[in-house]
Amino acid sequence: MIIDIHGHYTTAPKALEQWRSAQIAGIADPALKPQVAALKISDDELRESIQNNQLAKMQERGIDLTVFSPRASFMAHHIGDFQVSSTWAAICNELCYRVAQLFPNHFIPAAMLPQSPGVDPATCIPELLKCVQQFGNVAINLNPDPSGGHWTSPPLSDRHWYPIYEKMVEHQIPAMVHVSTSCNACFHTTGAHYLNADTTAFMQCLSSDLFKDFPTLKFIIPHGGGAVPYHWGRFRGLAQELKKPLLQDHLLHNIFFDTCVYHQPGIDLLTKVIPVHNILFASEMIGAVRGIDPETGFYFDDTKRYIEASTQLSAAHKQQIYEGNARRVYPRLDAALQRQGK
Amino acid sequence: MIIDIHGHYTTAPKALEQWRSAQIAGIADPALKPQVAALKISDDELRESIQNNQLAKMQERGIDLTVFSPRASFMAHHIGDFQVSSTWAAICNELCYRVAQLFPNHFIPAAMLPQSPGVDPATCIPELLKCVQQFGNVAINLNPDPSGGHWTSPPLSDRHWYPIYEKMVEHQIPAMVHVSTSCNACFHTTGAHYLNADTTAFMQCLSSDLFKDFPTLKFIIPHGGGAVPYHWGRFRGLAQELKKPLLQDHLLHNIFFDTCVYHQPGIDLLTKVIPVHNILFASEMIGAVRGIDPETGFYFDDTKRYIEASTQLSAAHKQQIYEGNARRVYPRLDAALQRQGK
Repeated sequence: MIIDIHGHYTTAPKALEQWRSAQIAGIADPALKPQVAALKISDDELRESIQNNQLAKMQERGIDLTVFSPRASFMAHHIGDFQVSSTWAAICNELCYRVAQLFPNHFIPAAMLPQSPGVDPATCIPELLKCVQQFGNVAINLNPDPSGGHWTSPPLSDRHWYPIYEKMVEHQIPAMVHVSTSCNACFHTTGAHYLNADTTAFMQCLSSDLFKDFPTLKFIIPHGGGAVPYHWGRFRGLAQELKKPLLQDHLLHNIFFDTCVYHQPGIDLLTKVIPVHNILFASEMIGAVRGIDPETGFYFDDTKRYIEASTQLSAAHKQQIYEGNARRVYPRLDAALQRQGK
Repeated sequence: MIIDIHGHYTTAPKALEQWRSAQIAGIADPALKPQVAALKISDDELRESIQNNQLAKMQERGIDLTVFSPRASFMAHHIGDFQVSSTWAAICNELCYRVAQLFPNHFIPAAMLPQSPGVDPATCIPELLKCVQQFGNVAINLNPDPSGGHWTSPPLSDRHWYPIYEKMVEHQIPAMVHVSTSCNACFHTTGAHYLNADTTAFMQCLSSDLFKDFPTLKFIIPHGGGAVPYHWGRFRGLAQELKKPLLQDHLLHNIFFDTCVYHQPGIDLLTKVIPVHNILFASEMIGAVRGIDPETGFYFDDTKRYIEASTQLSAAHKQQIYEGNARRVYPRLDAALQRQGK
């Protein structure tokens, strides 16, 4: 089977965005603050938003299952305080859970956290536990920069983050390290901030000994690892300068890369440089890049085509990238599939 | 001939660093502020710092000429005010000028600017003009983030930067877009901040129409363009979403990439994805990654080996990357070489 570990609910019914706008208006003027119960989205509306979008494309492309989380750019943890983030995360996570209930063969949820700049990440644990224990979430998205492009939190190697890691390890939940929208004019959200965060997170791990403290902690670095595979020699050299072990020993038991790289030469580099064991299939469809590549005639984000066209991957390698690695890195996903007899 | 367009004076005599430390101490306690005249470095000391380091390696590797600028991580524009940066830039630029005078066949200078966070870039123009007109500098290094990792300046497409661009165009001076040391704990300087800045600068150009205002402005994005070539499909797709022209029309008359990518697969991707016309040879030697790659037995930053080993570049392509493109993108470098009969 083919598992896409990186999908977001980018096509939620308009009512969600309208509710969020009202919530944001309510920060300045509490009279405008909406009730959670004021948001009404029916199962039919959810079905329609998925059937004509993500599910249609999955079926066209031959993708069986997507690990499905709230829209990354809408997490916007920099807006409001913890209470605002908490309410918003609960709403978004519930919608992804409902989508997974409606399409149990095609979607399984991953949670956003109610992060807020300057707030102890331990405050996210109740939402995390609810999503894992009640909603069957198999992973979380962890934002290393809840400020939205001002980078005011400590690095991921700091003990600041350890309460989250303790729960991740306890519940066998990996984290995709994924920032949200940039509110810094320097950084275009999907063209700079996302890729920068990927590179930054990797280097935070490289320059630290985080995985000595958490040997079973698992991070997925999305968007093909940002700049990392392209500069693998640089990172190998920097690890050497910093007297760290070889990267395969220092980081590759814990760090994995997805395949959200939208052209053949990029995927070819990724699969050449990074061990197959550390690559997980993903497309972030429907996401940042929605168009058709005029050079190929196919969607930029149809990443399965690049994997299929790879001349360096064997059939067994492809099976690892499509399914085997995801089942290993996401144990709760594997358990859920086994319960379905898959 | 082989021109390395990206070298920094990373091996300056210790007296320089000591003077800088005194200057920094003098920010808090003016009694400690050193006189410029207190810094004494003899020609013999300069010669020794170069002969045994950069020049020795250039000769080993067969590199004829390096475009030589002050140490990037030491620019540290975030320290002190404009006056501090101004004094420091003048000192560093003079040293690179003196190196070029001592080794006129092997080094030609590029200038750092006395940037300071929150200060109008127009204040940099006197130093820029001095370096071009009196010191024979052929380029500048432009720091898009003088705050050192807090990204508090406007994007490069903002009119904030136009006074610099006007002088660049008038004097036919390209800029390497190069940040300095990171004082944000999230960003490792050479493992994250440099690469992030490269990606960020490219996307700032992509999402704007800067080159409509300055059709002859030229930027070199160092470190192989950060994440850009690896994600070329993503950037092509984002340009399409933003209703911009094809990247070759929108940006590639004005943006060039260096070859500071420290492994063969990275250089192979760069030279496959980016037109040869837009690739300039560089190694940033002696720079961030100084060790020997245990996988090859050669220095990580010996980038000429990767160009030589490329199976997709013809001899004519290599000549363009080694010399032809540099002479076209740096007209004052070409003029200087012509004056030398080269």
